Amino acid sequence: MVPAPVFPRLVAIGGAEDKEGERAILREFVRLSGGEGASIVVIPSASETPDVVGELYQRIFQELGAPEVSVLTIAARDDARNEAAMRQVERATGTFFTGGDQLRIMNRLGGTGVDTTLHRRCEEGMVVGGTSAGAAVMSSTMIVEGETKSPRAGAVRTGPGLELLPGVIIDQHFAQRGRIGRLLSVIGLFPHYLGVGIDEDTAIVVQGHRATVIGSGAVTIVDAGGASFNDAVDTPTGACITLCEVTLHSLPHGRSFDLLERKPILDSQ
Amino acid sequence: MVPAPVFPRLVAIGGAEDKEGERAILREFVRLSGGEGASIVVIPSASETPDVVGELYQRIFQELGAPEVSVLTIAARDDARNEAAMRQVERATGTFFTGGDQLRIMNRLGGTGVDTTLHRRCEEGMVVGGTSAGAAVMSSTMIVEGETKSPRAGAVRTGPGLELLPGVIIDQHFAQRGRIGRLLSVIGLFPHYLGVGIDEDTAIVVQGHRATVIGSGAVTIVDAGGASFNDAVDTPTGACITLCEVTLHSLPHGRSFDLLERKPILDSQ
Repeated sequence: MVPAPVFPRLVAIGGAEDKEGERAILREFVRLSGGEGASIVVIPSASETPDVVGELYQRIFQELGAPEVSVLTIAARDDARNEAAMRQVERATGTFFTGGDQLRIMNRLGGTGVDTTLHRRCEEGMVVGGTSAGAAVMSSTMIVEGETKSPRAGAVRTGPGLELLPGVIIDQHFAQRGRIGRLLSVIGLFPHYLGVGIDEDTAIVVQGHRATVIGSGAVTIVDAGGASFNDAVDTPTGACITLCEVTLHSLPHGRSFDLLERKPILDSQ
Repeated sequence: MVPAPVFPRLVAIGGAEDKEGERAILREFVRLSGGEGASIVVIPSASETPDVVGELYQRIFQELGAPEVSVLTIAARDDARNEAAMRQVERATGTFFTGGDQLRIMNRLGGTGVDTTLHRRCEEGMVVGGTSAGAAVMSSTMIVEGETKSPRAGAVRTGPGLELLPGVIIDQHFAQRGRIGRLLSVIGLFPHYLGVGIDEDTAIVVQGHRATVIGSGAVTIVDAGGASFNDAVDTPTGACITLCEVTLHSLPHGRSFDLLERKPILDSQ
């Protein structure tokens, strides 16, 4: 029997979360990380300006009550094999990946000691948060780049992610950038994965296999597992694919979804 | 027993169709209207510059081989009660509504003699084409205005359309303007209607209850008829609605959909 996948505690944010006002999403990340007992490591490796972004989130998490917040700058793979870096993650109750380019995270962290430590700490209950690229990278197969309005073959490049969230492909800035076509292009090729499109200032909080939506937008879940027709594999590059009977859910703040059963949880109607 | 709805012959275009090159969609409209025997009436009532737009389409349809193309300018309701206007539609084998504001079409034509003549001629086999606003207006309940990225209550204004296409709500410029949230907002309220989102330079050709996609983009069909949960009616204005288990189809050029059975027709795989 295949063992049930392990879902760590995650906060995957669709980007552009409130950083000035109530900061409800980042506040929830701090709370889940232990609040007054939180020890948070910010990893700004996705960013072009890691120092600026690292300091920004450090300040916010401190303002939101986390007593210990450090920045872990990983500019090269060697930085992610460094003992001090591993110890930093070892001590953390929460790790946060900022936005930028998800490929930078994978290029610098994938398969390193910090990556391994991160996964082990997740199994022990550490929370991983991430916004935009920092959310995309939680996927097993991750969207690397490529935009397409209509669902088209070959329009979107995918690659390995940090594999924190089994069976899920996350897309971000979802409604704001009109990315349903991009996500459908990808789940056409990977129908065994759930496509999860997260709007800006919106997040899913994953605890066990329950994902709960928080924030001001919606989360769109597309499931091609039961599609009656799907020619994504056979369609020539650049042409539109055909997808029939994909299941779509649109879930706002407070709604939950069972990532394992691939069904909404409607007990809180 | 409720009689089966009558579907006229329609070409509903998502806007921005090719007007310079191969002009495949407009060419198909001319062909369906009778080609060398076509008598086409262009109704540019949706446009802010009806004379310019009317002449543009007149020239294109002539270039595409229609021997008789006239423009019917309806600037006020009286123009649509005019005997000469009714005779113009009476003689037509094809009528074409240009883009602009769909409400202008309804305000000027709805319930007039031209409207009645149009419907009668449709029953006799006349083809109605329309692009953008001219496609939206074919709906029974039509999207009037309002944009929303995430599906939200009260974000989209609807009103009566020309009721040429029973049971369907058309949205246009669909992928290009990221309108899935807007269409979901509407079909949440009207789950008995099919939501049909047509991309730019893309159209559905309706013959009987079969809609066939032509053009360079895709047609997205969303069906909330079987949704397991839908709180669109109860959600306060401005808040995101919840929709669970909506069925979505994405269909490119050559694919067909049965508007009555609400299922794709896959005989042409």
